[in-house]
Amino acid sequence: MADMLTKRATDYAQWYNDLVLKADLAEHSDVRGCMVIKPHGYAIWEKMQRALDDMFKETGHTNAYFPLFIPKSYLAKEASHVEGFAKECAVVTHYRLKSDPEHGVVVDPEAKLEEELIVRPTSETIIWNTYRGWIKSYRDLPLLINQWANVVRWEMRTRLFLRTAEFLWQEGHTAHATQAEAIEETERMLEVYRRFAEEWLAIPVIKGIKTASERFAGAEETYCIEALMQDGKALQAGTSHFLGQNFAKAFDVLFTNKENRQEHVWATSWGVSTRLMGALIMTHSDDQGLVLPPKLAPVQVAVVPIAKNNEQLEAIRAYVQPTLTALRSKGISVKFDDDDTKKPGWKFAEYEFKGYPVRIAIGPRDMENGTVEVARRDTLEKQVMQITDIADKIEHLLQAIQDNLFQKALAMREAGTRAVDTYEEFKVEIEKGGFLLAHWDGTAETEARVKEETKATIRCLPLDGDNAPGHCMVTGKPSARRVIFARAY
Amino acid sequence: MADMLTKRATDYAQWYNDLVLKADLAEHSDVRGCMVIKPHGYAIWEKMQRALDDMFKETGHTNAYFPLFIPKSYLAKEASHVEGFAKECAVVTHYRLKSDPEHGVVVDPEAKLEEELIVRPTSETIIWNTYRGWIKSYRDLPLLINQWANVVRWEMRTRLFLRTAEFLWQEGHTAHATQAEAIEETERMLEVYRRFAEEWLAIPVIKGIKTASERFAGAEETYCIEALMQDGKALQAGTSHFLGQNFAKAFDVLFTNKENRQEHVWATSWGVSTRLMGALIMTHSDDQGLVLPPKLAPVQVAVVPIAKNNEQLEAIRAYVQPTLTALRSKGISVKFDDDDTKKPGWKFAEYEFKGYPVRIAIGPRDMENGTVEVARRDTLEKQVMQITDIADKIEHLLQAIQDNLFQKALAMREAGTRAVDTYEEFKVEIEKGGFLLAHWDGTAETEARVKEETKATIRCLPLDGDNAPGHCMVTGKPSARRVIFARAY
Repeated sequence: MADMLTKRATDYAQWYNDLVLKADLAEHSDVRGCMVIKPHGYAIWEKMQRALDDMFKETGHTNAYFPLFIPKSYLAKEASHVEGFAKECAVVTHYRLKSDPEHGVVVDPEAKLEEELIVRPTSETIIWNTYRGWIKSYRDLPLLINQWANVVRWEMRTRLFLRTAEFLWQEGHTAHATQAEAIEETERMLEVYRRFAEEWLAIPVIKGIKTASERFAGAEETYCIEALMQDGKALQAGTSHFLGQNFAKAFDVLFTNKENRQEHVWATSWGVSTRLMGALIMTHSDDQGLVLPPKLAPVQVAVVPIAKNNEQLEAIRAYVQPTLTALRSKGISVKFDDDDTKKPGWKFAEYEFKGYPVRIAIGPRDMENGTVEVARRDTLEKQVMQITDIADKIEHLLQAIQDNLFQKALAMREAGTRAVDTYEEFKVEIEKGGFLLAHWDGTAETEARVKEETKATIRCLPLDGDNAPGHCMVTGKPSARRVIFARAY
Repeated sequence: MADMLTKRATDYAQWYNDLVLKADLAEHSDVRGCMVIKPHGYAIWEKMQRALDDMFKETGHTNAYFPLFIPKSYLAKEASHVEGFAKECAVVTHYRLKSDPEHGVVVDPEAKLEEELIVRPTSETIIWNTYRGWIKSYRDLPLLINQWANVVRWEMRTRLFLRTAEFLWQEGHTAHATQAEAIEETERMLEVYRRFAEEWLAIPVIKGIKTASERFAGAEETYCIEALMQDGKALQAGTSHFLGQNFAKAFDVLFTNKENRQEHVWATSWGVSTRLMGALIMTHSDDQGLVLPPKLAPVQVAVVPIAKNNEQLEAIRAYVQPTLTALRSKGISVKFDDDDTKKPGWKFAEYEFKGYPVRIAIGPRDMENGTVEVARRDTLEKQVMQITDIADKIEHLLQAIQDNLFQKALAMREAGTRAVDTYEEFKVEIEKGGFLLAHWDGTAETEARVKEETKATIRCLPLDGDNAPGHCMVTGKPSARRVIFARAY
């Protein structure tokens, strides 16, 4: 199957697209910009959801559900928010179709809405309008709510998972009594995202703060985690926003504080989306197909019997049964593939292409020798192992694969991260991709000029790292510290 | 809190509405017909989702995701389907807003879609258009896919959970090589719904087939499960449709069979929605508030310490800690409520009102006596129990509550189910509510006349039960068997 795949070195974008389609992760639908997430892709997303949801609940959040539609006037209440989203809104104007003898089924002009409804691009406005009824006193705070939902942002140029008109995501929306608590929450959720990215996706990320021009529309401060893909481009993998009192003011959400005075509530919002599927694929996969971290693989171990006849198949089944049971009792997901319409070689190719972390093959000779053949997807190494304690060995192997993927991605990022001091050097280096650490004078003008001239943007002001001051590589003006530039998805 | 609740006998509809709002399950949003599902309500829905999802996966289904939007022309491809849904479609006509100096933010007339998009009321059309690309040969069948999603049906009169413009649901869409396999799948999923309703929701249901006039738009046959609410009205709790080859023909989905001939694929679809929340509430709850079956309660056991001071609180905490650990190790969800801003009496009232199945209270005297006080929500009984083996006792109690709720609901349904033989008798009995078993001549005319004159509809032709022929209660014509009439939600 891997021969259907464009090589990364030949055309990285085409490799990505081939892989998403041919590994059955997703495909374009006939509806412009909307994707179909296929079962193999959706199963990975479900594992991400489950892990994130557990982490949200551990940090005190509960889920709720708010309407898909937002009245146009709500969106308009927060000025910078509507400015940020107005150009990509799907607008519902009518609520009925009717039959027309000449044109078939048409929109019924009689059924026009008084006020147009926007399909949510994000839910701050509808949620803060609701919170007005829920928050009266400091006793109602903090309010820590998350929503799993679909959202729509009308994009002209789309790419599967990375940029689609409709996508799936979670959006946390919290309300707090003080600025300090809201900032603490913003940072807490950023850390949850970092932990999820590194421990589950096996993607090393840099935590940082966005510049004003890259900030979420309506936020006071946007925190982000940034990852580096194999082609040297950056990908924003999650954001956590400190919203100040902007939405509380736009929607009149006040609370009585402990001193019995009325105050506007402080807010945060934070989200990650099916875009993470794109990050996952572009970080680990290779020219042989998909590579999945074991923690997110829908099936972690595929077991392929190599039998000439039904008698052999049954003998192998009996031979491996205790191993399957032992693996499952450890919470490891296993598929015993006894489909006799497909040859073992075809199965090997498919499991490799679709990113099953471990593949076990068992033939008659293995039964004689008390062995199994174990192949790991990340390194493509095979080895023959004694079947004794094999479940323990596989458990360790899965952990080793998870660790190896992270370490490999970390090494790649470190190799791609360099400090540059002059704009000349920057222009040369940016062509090679990667994260470039450079001094910047803090102005939007310089940021815009660099973007215009090199297509690189400031990914973030990193929270950890080098805090030494210097001089802007472009203007020579003072710079408080280096920031991270990159070309980005 | 229960004193805020209208009594069922006074005004059942008002009782329901009060309860949904005051038990923090859901509320109306400002967006016409759309609801906000609040954390307590959503937590119950999540438990339903988890249980159903496990059952779908056990029966070989996988999840996937299809677009929110359906091109108008797709909806129109299956004639009876579009006829069924045209009158309640939310229609997207534009994809951009813009600023207007005079009117603020307006829809940009330049950004009009060439073809309008319908917000999915159900996904048969977009899914069968996609399946055309996925199904080539009998080897690709059966295709067993489910989707968890939001859908929109523009309703003029809405009620929280029972009938809302936007609701959450799952929709299964399967494709099969033969009619027999498709019918088998339709029946298999109906049985999954029955089992879920009875074993999880503790709601007894009757499996049956809808009449032609109550059939899903585009189906050959609609199977359903029907439940009886406390006020004597019926509620359709789930449907499973045999779609024949209707959608395969509308979307040209053909496969090569084992004899190498091209055939249209056979289809099913099946769904349950947040409407089940309404069924759950109306089956079990009472004038004291919400009653939840333990299997779906977000928290199954609330533990309330009764302490005069912090020292007592800490002593109680130590006293109960082994019990909390033992309960959790059995997979029972427990909340130890040490919030000292609320009095125990207030907590008791809240847990009762919000349907926590078991409440444990512990005071200083309990510690002296080695006891705890256990209250069960379904019967409102309290008893003092020795703390020895209390986790085992609570585990049994939770099961007893689950069973009791089902038996109580079953007794209520059985008391409400009667055979009637004459239309005169029917008109009297229908005023009392319940399921009426009556003979019907099988015509749409008679069905419509009964509905017109009594507001009762045929809920279903039950799959199990009395198969004796007779004569239609209205026309006296021959009837193959009794069917179930009721007034319905």
